Amino acid sequence: MSETKALATYLVNSRLEDIPDDVQHEARRALLNYIGCAVGGSREPAVETSLRALTPYFGKPTAAILARSERMDPLHAALMNGTSSHVYEYDDTMPKNYIHPTPPVASAVFAHAGANRVSGRDFVHAFLLGFEAEARVGNAVYPAHYDAGWHITSTAGVFGAAAAIGKLLGLSVQQMVWAIGLAATQACGLREMFGYMAKSFHAGLAARNGYVGAVLAQSNFTAGERGLESPRGFAAVQAAKYDLSKVTDGLGTDFQIRYNTYKPYPCGLVVHPAIDGCIDLYRDHHPAPDSIKAVRVRVAPLVIDLCNKKDITRGLEGKYSIYHSSAVGLVRGKAGLQEYTDAAVNDPVVKLVRERVVAISDTSITEDQAHIEVELQDGRKLVRFIEQSLGNVHRPLSDRQLEEKLRDQCVPALSSAQVDRLIELCWKIDQLEDVGEIVRATVGA
Amino acid sequence: MSETKALATYLVNSRLEDIPDDVQHEARRALLNYIGCAVGGSREPAVETSLRALTPYFGKPTAAILARSERMDPLHAALMNGTSSHVYEYDDTMPKNYIHPTPPVASAVFAHAGANRVSGRDFVHAFLLGFEAEARVGNAVYPAHYDAGWHITSTAGVFGAAAAIGKLLGLSVQQMVWAIGLAATQACGLREMFGYMAKSFHAGLAARNGYVGAVLAQSNFTAGERGLESPRGFAAVQAAKYDLSKVTDGLGTDFQIRYNTYKPYPCGLVVHPAIDGCIDLYRDHHPAPDSIKAVRVRVAPLVIDLCNKKDITRGLEGKYSIYHSSAVGLVRGKAGLQEYTDAAVNDPVVKLVRERVVAISDTSITEDQAHIEVELQDGRKLVRFIEQSLGNVHRPLSDRQLEEKLRDQCVPALSSAQVDRLIELCWKIDQLEDVGEIVRATVGA
Repeated sequence: MSETKALATYLVNSRLEDIPDDVQHEARRALLNYIGCAVGGSREPAVETSLRALTPYFGKPTAAILARSERMDPLHAALMNGTSSHVYEYDDTMPKNYIHPTPPVASAVFAHAGANRVSGRDFVHAFLLGFEAEARVGNAVYPAHYDAGWHITSTAGVFGAAAAIGKLLGLSVQQMVWAIGLAATQACGLREMFGYMAKSFHAGLAARNGYVGAVLAQSNFTAGERGLESPRGFAAVQAAKYDLSKVTDGLGTDFQIRYNTYKPYPCGLVVHPAIDGCIDLYRDHHPAPDSIKAVRVRVAPLVIDLCNKKDITRGLEGKYSIYHSSAVGLVRGKAGLQEYTDAAVNDPVVKLVRERVVAISDTSITEDQAHIEVELQDGRKLVRFIEQSLGNVHRPLSDRQLEEKLRDQCVPALSSAQVDRLIELCWKIDQLEDVGEIVRATVGA
Repeated sequence: MSETKALATYLVNSRLEDIPDDVQHEARRALLNYIGCAVGGSREPAVETSLRALTPYFGKPTAAILARSERMDPLHAALMNGTSSHVYEYDDTMPKNYIHPTPPVASAVFAHAGANRVSGRDFVHAFLLGFEAEARVGNAVYPAHYDAGWHITSTAGVFGAAAAIGKLLGLSVQQMVWAIGLAATQACGLREMFGYMAKSFHAGLAARNGYVGAVLAQSNFTAGERGLESPRGFAAVQAAKYDLSKVTDGLGTDFQIRYNTYKPYPCGLVVHPAIDGCIDLYRDHHPAPDSIKAVRVRVAPLVIDLCNKKDITRGLEGKYSIYHSSAVGLVRGKAGLQEYTDAAVNDPVVKLVRERVVAISDTSITEDQAHIEVELQDGRKLVRFIEQSLGNVHRPLSDRQLEEKLRDQCVPALSSAQVDRLIELCWKIDQLEDVGEIVRATVGA
């Protein structure tokens, strides 16, 4: 059987009962993390600008963007949700293939659930299947596809959105095959857009394009039936090397969401271990900022290559500064969104400590590690070695840490009671009769 | 200056007064041909099916699909126009790069003109610039891009739609650069979809995606500024070999629409010379069908490879039959849409002659040529050699022949008086104050 047909058959026949509890719990974690990102990003310029530009084209107001009061058709809602949830670069990551997997899939299913009554069980099931399709298509073409310049979150994401919406629409195997073909022929998104608004828009494109593919397939709109494996299909056209056995091997047992990771800090991944160490030292010692004489951070060479910004004035620059990131860890004991604002970068206390940080390139230190030595004015030295970065696949964020991350992202938008309610709904999503409850709970007063 | 910037600068600064009359006339010919295709294809299953599937998502009914009464937002109108105008495979072709150039561009500008008052002069100007951008981007990546499996009508077409709508929206150079970037990052469409509904949908995707790119750019939604030429831009990612000087060399003087061609018959291009010869013999001799003893058609070997269907019962099969195509030329003196219906294929008179056709592969005959010998029952032989196929770039369809083609396509949809009016409007499009007049004139009583 062709990979396209095998994947379609699995998607159509899968039952939630066959999916283990740990996988279902990981889905709830991914969705909770996603909701925080979507709320946090919902007022960013990329969202405001595209919303303003596209409003004249919106269809009947049956769906909503998460965390906003505007209503629109579900296709545009999928587009906007994708943009808002990806814009902060704070969403989840698959270290296997560099996909940010939840935005393309969840943006489509939340848009659908805003406009149609979808039960929590059906929602979680469709989301998991979409995640699986996306991750496996990504595994099959990574790294050649990504190296060539494709933004894999978008190009693999469209398969995930098509699979998830296709499941919710109850497609037959034949229709799911067409939906996969329609995803293949709409897969797009260039890495050239990194650093521009168009980058976060890609996650929205994947969500909307996959959604359109599933809707068309439901009406028996035909498409090539070997979308993945044909010589003119997705893999051959968009990757110099690929291995389609990764689409099908272990399908239904080796769930890819188990390899998903969540960023604990909204900044360059490579500075995370240093932040971990600084936060640990803050927690254990609470050094007064003016008691700090010097901070020596030993890190992998790549950290210096990517995050060597020292003399900075803007929050965005702070995200790529090993100095700033270490300083906020030591001064504030955290590195959340509020630590990467322009105000935080210009905070005199943070600045004082930042100027005392020295970063040392050390080839014996991996990219998941950091060694921190804080020398105090009284001569004492505080030392911490981080062996595994918090949030990587070996040291995942706990459920409580994911909640804290969501709280941090919701600060400007929701009251504390609203956030409590949102967290509660996310954990019990599979008991909801209507996932629209979550969509509505993301909107502040 | 980068190719992206150079192209954007040309598009923004171009004035219609600087474009020669012959080029403007060719634009009217392309648009007239397009209108016939859009009317002719407007009830095809790919159109009916996608229309039914997507209706729930349509926005405010400010625009219309050509030749239909349904109204919708212009983005969906662009999508639907692209599908209907490309579905018959009767649209125009650039022999340089195999792009069917008018559907992606005209589908977007007609959708825009249905919802906004656009003068004929502005319309023709925007269309010509879109055509130019699309054709030149296509030239730059052809043939490697097409050979790799990309449906170039879609992937180059999105640049044309973005350029044309961008011109109508009055983008600045900076905004046009972003629009080109947004086109680059939405370029998609696999040749794997040939033979399925998704194929004609590609022309619509190009129209809609380009339109979205221009609308976003107008609101200063940012995108990579080297969309064409960057190492992670369109050309490098989507073509193993490319030459971007083809985007800029002769820009503003060597107009690509001069190399455009129009199909005289709605069937495989390679059987066209044989049809030409048979129609000539019909016109000059009117042989009675039962007087025909044998028909010997000498053709290039490729014709036999592609169009060897003899024992046929469906209209679609007739399109790829050298036997059927020769027979209708000899029996009816034409090969229009009515000659490729199921009824025509099963017409006993056509069948009688079809069975007497022998096709001979001859390596001395080019793909633009055919040699026809009709042997009559009385021993006489009627002979015709076609040196250049009607409709190729050396023997273009006349304005009258284009009108006849449009008439043929409009038969089921419009009255003869309505068709006369439509033709008149197309020829005088540059005098119209509102191109919406043409959109409305495509809709029957």
